[in-house]
Amino acid sequence: MSRAPNTWIITAQCPSRIGTVDVVTRYLRESECYITELNSFDDHETGQFYIRAEFRPGDGFDGGDFRDGFQPRAAGFDMQFDLTPPDYRPPVVIMVSKSDHCLNDLLYRHRIGQLNMDIRAVISNHPDLRELTEWHGIPYHHLPVSAETREQQEAQVWDVIQETGAELVILARYMQVLSPALCTRLEGWAINIHHSLLPGFKGARPYHQAYRKGVKLVGATAHYINNDLDEGPIITQGVEPVNHADYPEDLIAKGRDIECITLARAVGHHLERRVFLYAGRTVVFQP
Amino acid sequence: MSRAPNTWIITAQCPSRIGTVDVVTRYLRESECYITELNSFDDHETGQFYIRAEFRPGDGFDGGDFRDGFQPRAAGFDMQFDLTPPDYRPPVVIMVSKSDHCLNDLLYRHRIGQLNMDIRAVISNHPDLRELTEWHGIPYHHLPVSAETREQQEAQVWDVIQETGAELVILARYMQVLSPALCTRLEGWAINIHHSLLPGFKGARPYHQAYRKGVKLVGATAHYINNDLDEGPIITQGVEPVNHADYPEDLIAKGRDIECITLARAVGHHLERRVFLYAGRTVVFQP
Amino acid sequence: MSRAPNTWIITAQCPSRIGTVDVVTRYLRESECYITELNSFDDHETGQFYIRAEFRPGDGFDGGDFRDGFQPRAAGFDMQFDLTPPDYRPPVVIMVSKSDHCLNDLLYRHRIGQLNMDIRAVISNHPDLRELTEWHGIPYHHLPVSAETREQQEAQVWDVIQETGAELVILARYMQVLSPALCTRLEGWAINIHHSLLPGFKGARPYHQAYRKGVKLVGATAHYINNDLDEGPIITQGVEPVNHADYPEDLIAKGRDIECITLARAVGHHLERRVFLYAGRTVVFQP
Amino acid sequence: MSRAPNTWIITAQCPSRIGTVDVVTRYLRESECYITELNSFDDHETGQFYIRAEFRPGDGFDGGDFRDGFQPRAAGFDMQFDLTPPDYRPPVVIMVSKSDHCLNDLLYRHRIGQLNMDIRAVISNHPDLRELTEWHGIPYHHLPVSAETREQQEAQVWDVIQETGAELVILARYMQVLSPALCTRLEGWAINIHHSLLPGFKGARPYHQAYRKGVKLVGATAHYINNDLDEGPIITQGVEPVNHADYPEDLIAKGRDIECITLARAVGHHLERRVFLYAGRTVVFQP
Repeated sequence: MSRAPNTWIITAQCPSRIGTVDVVTRYLRESECYITELNSFDDHETGQFYIRAEFRPGDGFDGGDFRDGFQPRAAGFDMQFDLTPPDYRPPVVIMVSKSDHCLNDLLYRHRIGQLNMDIRAVISNHPDLRELTEWHGIPYHHLPVSAETREQQEAQVWDVIQETGAELVILARYMQVLSPALCTRLEGWAINIHHSLLPGFKGARPYHQAYRKGVKLVGATAHYINNDLDEGPIITQGVEPVNHADYPEDLIAKGRDIECITLARAVGHHLERRVFLYAGRTVVFQP
Repeated sequence: MSRAPNTWIITAQCPSRIGTVDVVTRYLRESECYITELNSFDDHETGQFYIRAEFRPGDGFDGGDFRDGFQPRAAGFDMQFDLTPPDYRPPVVIMVSKSDHCLNDLLYRHRIGQLNMDIRAVISNHPDLRELTEWHGIPYHHLPVSAETREQQEAQVWDVIQETGAELVILARYMQVLSPALCTRLEGWAINIHHSLLPGFKGARPYHQAYRKGVKLVGATAHYINNDLDEGPIITQGVEPVNHADYPEDLIAKGRDIECITLARAVGHHLERRVFLYAGRTVVFQP
Repeated sequence: MSRAPNTWIITAQCPSRIGTVDVVTRYLRESECYITELNSFDDHETGQFYIRAEFRPGDGFDGGDFRDGFQPRAAGFDMQFDLTPPDYRPPVVIMVSKSDHCLNDLLYRHRIGQLNMDIRAVISNHPDLRELTEWHGIPYHHLPVSAETREQQEAQVWDVIQETGAELVILARYMQVLSPALCTRLEGWAINIHHSLLPGFKGARPYHQAYRKGVKLVGATAHYINNDLDEGPIITQGVEPVNHADYPEDLIAKGRDIECITLARAVGHHLERRVFLYAGRTVVFQP
Repeated sequence: MSRAPNTWIITAQCPSRIGTVDVVTRYLRESECYITELNSFDDHETGQFYIRAEFRPGDGFDGGDFRDGFQPRAAGFDMQFDLTPPDYRPPVVIMVSKSDHCLNDLLYRHRIGQLNMDIRAVISNHPDLRELTEWHGIPYHHLPVSAETREQQEAQVWDVIQETGAELVILARYMQVLSPALCTRLEGWAINIHHSLLPGFKGARPYHQAYRKGVKLVGATAHYINNDLDEGPIITQGVEPVNHADYPEDLIAKGRDIECITLARAVGHHLERRVFLYAGRTVVFQP
């Protein structure tokens, strides 16, 4: 499951057509790349094709040349592709409010190198999580927000994202609804954790909703954000059994672990280029 | 977890008040009953109290006398109670349509004595499952239904339930919406299996809904029926991971096992008197 | 996950070497086969390579020609490969003793077409499961066995396997230890279900061992048989939580479902050619 | 599940005898204590009885008087009992080596008040985890150990335990085998996390053992320590699916979450007085 050192990743998707696998694998062979793991899937409902390969390059391999060489072949299939080097460690911005369990979990995994990313900043609309963040040596941006100031605050948020060069934004229990404008800008590269099994219990206080409903399972859903609140494409979901003796505060406590794990898995899959987005749904090649 | 031979069950609920446990346990002691398992729970949100005890009676124990003796004490607490003898094996009617996985599963558990009930009849709006049912020596009632004939058909259904003396009705993938009148009659003693994690994906074809949504988990919910479609009090829920490669027919196939297990657990809990109903939610004392 | 109609499967393994993927995918392309799902894995510990592809053939595709054409290319990589047609439905023999839950489950999945196999015979050392088997229209061979008669009985077992042309033998709770000779003959194409999480609780009465140990989880392991009792390569494992109130008979009851599901998954993976055997371990390309 | 404010806990166990429940519940009633949650269990294999009650005391309740008053009644049943006040927050010592995931997890839960204990010290045979520990304001004792110095080092360990008044010792991946003398002293109040599903893969490097065996599940076991290495009474177990692509380092990474959660649950159950020890096994009244 873990990538061996010096292993590159190529991912691609395009409309279904004969030869979509061969165009990738043959080029890898011709480039003397050794494929260590390969997955492809053809969705006969949507007519879309997806492929992901991990490979060890041959001597004198040059990513730029490889990309240039593959471009015309990919074009012939309307294929969009990405090439990810072994040392890829994208800049990331995390957004939080007051709850710190997901942040604490991400910072820990980041610190031990389990999540291969470079957290450049933590943004919060509250001051509470500064100490935790700064102990990990990461800048903390306290950007308060109100109905009146949302536009300006989101402009500040966007500045931080731009300045850090973030390629991924993680909403780790950020309890503010983003404006359509910002959602549009972040579409496809911002992951949110919602503390329910979507589509159940959208919106505010899902654990209180779950308590009133009397469910016997609670869960968490990690999804890309888009312009429909809690409706973005689902990446991972996790679940936890509960019972009649669990009051809302118990559901909140029991839910923490599964929120952390579900978000961390989604982020890991994203970083490892295992997630493909198409038509409001995801294809995830499990490790 | 399994009841020892000659073990009775007493269950009770009433408004929260000091002494609710003692009124039960003291009477059991005075009656020289030996408690093998006891659970009580006081819900501070609803102010309702629940208790369940399994016990071995003393010599010369008589259920009727025990009941009569406890009645006045219970009355002092507005306590409703039930006494269940060791050999309790209630008459049950199962309703199905064409899908046979839940029926097959229930008939199997019934045959090996895992579910302590006496299946007196299977009712279906289709002829398909007659052979399976009759091989188990159980009468099969084919009662076709249409929009026009629903009232008459439900009258026939009710006749079967009455004639068999059924104390529990199991809707094991019965794909017809019951009339409010029949729902009201069955409230609290009819268990339905819905093939989604309620409240997500209510109504028709939940696996197709789940596919379109792109969820990464599917599930099943066993609940008592009431007058709100798929809104009755939840007894048990089960879940199964799925992925992008699962088309609706795959979700249907993957869901079968969890539907069977979730329904069987709910029925087992009901038969063992582990389920309490109050204000649209359940209290379930897990084995 | 389910195979589309007219979809073939090619599986192959060989020592790791550059070009192992390309030799398969290029040939598929040249044969105008359309790959709908592809998985490959290179094990850098063992230096062994594994690949599985589902594909829709082009017009006038002939399996024999395809095989012949690929043979020399495969030979260049010391590659062993299998080609599985869409209508592949191998003859299977099931062996049981007295417990019927796994048999009942397999017969049900067989009947509804969930497991794509042709059960030709059920062999048992007891008469008990004849009626269940024959209701499904499958011949039942009662072959009693004792320490003295084991050799003759196994000869009879082997005759049945031979006569039915079985390509898979399923030990669905067959409670006899097979002789080394028979194990050797069945190595790689006989799947056994053991009712514990191997390597824990090998041998007899694992649920009683688990009870004495006071574990909080019980499980089941489906594995290929070999000459080491309960030591064969593991295909799938399943688990179920238990607690202090579960006596051995409760563990047995709670374990039934997970035994059935674990065995059925292993059989399904085997039939779909998702399982590869190498050096006492398995590679399983999950659906 | 969470205790309401001002809720006490009484736990007791004794040999099975009629009246064991009543002696507790009647006394609670006479003391005008209101029982909010009650569980009792009678083990017919061992002939041992267990009871746990959470209760709100009446006005002017005095723990000492309550204890004194119950003592003679308990004595009549050879009943050992404990009374736990609402503000009970026992001193705890955590022992670690170099792996920090369980420590990080416990410190986090401690910080947010999810685990109701007072961590007085962290002891390690390595210096690595000092910074993490001290950031949480907890003293760190680096006590190196070698085969030669074990006796002296354990004497120092015992001094820390004594000085802190620890009532619970948590071995959060402490990778040293304790001497029989120290095990005996800690028996029943020291919880260890072992990174396998015991009794499978005892001893060193269980994930490497699991990899070689080719299991499809890895797990963790939290247990009380005793004089048999990895043989102590099991409190909780957790499990995580793995596959052929998981090398030992992947199993180690995948196992971290389940180790943390399994240990935290065991500690929580212990702190909430839900765990009873008898004859090498545990009774755990689940929340």
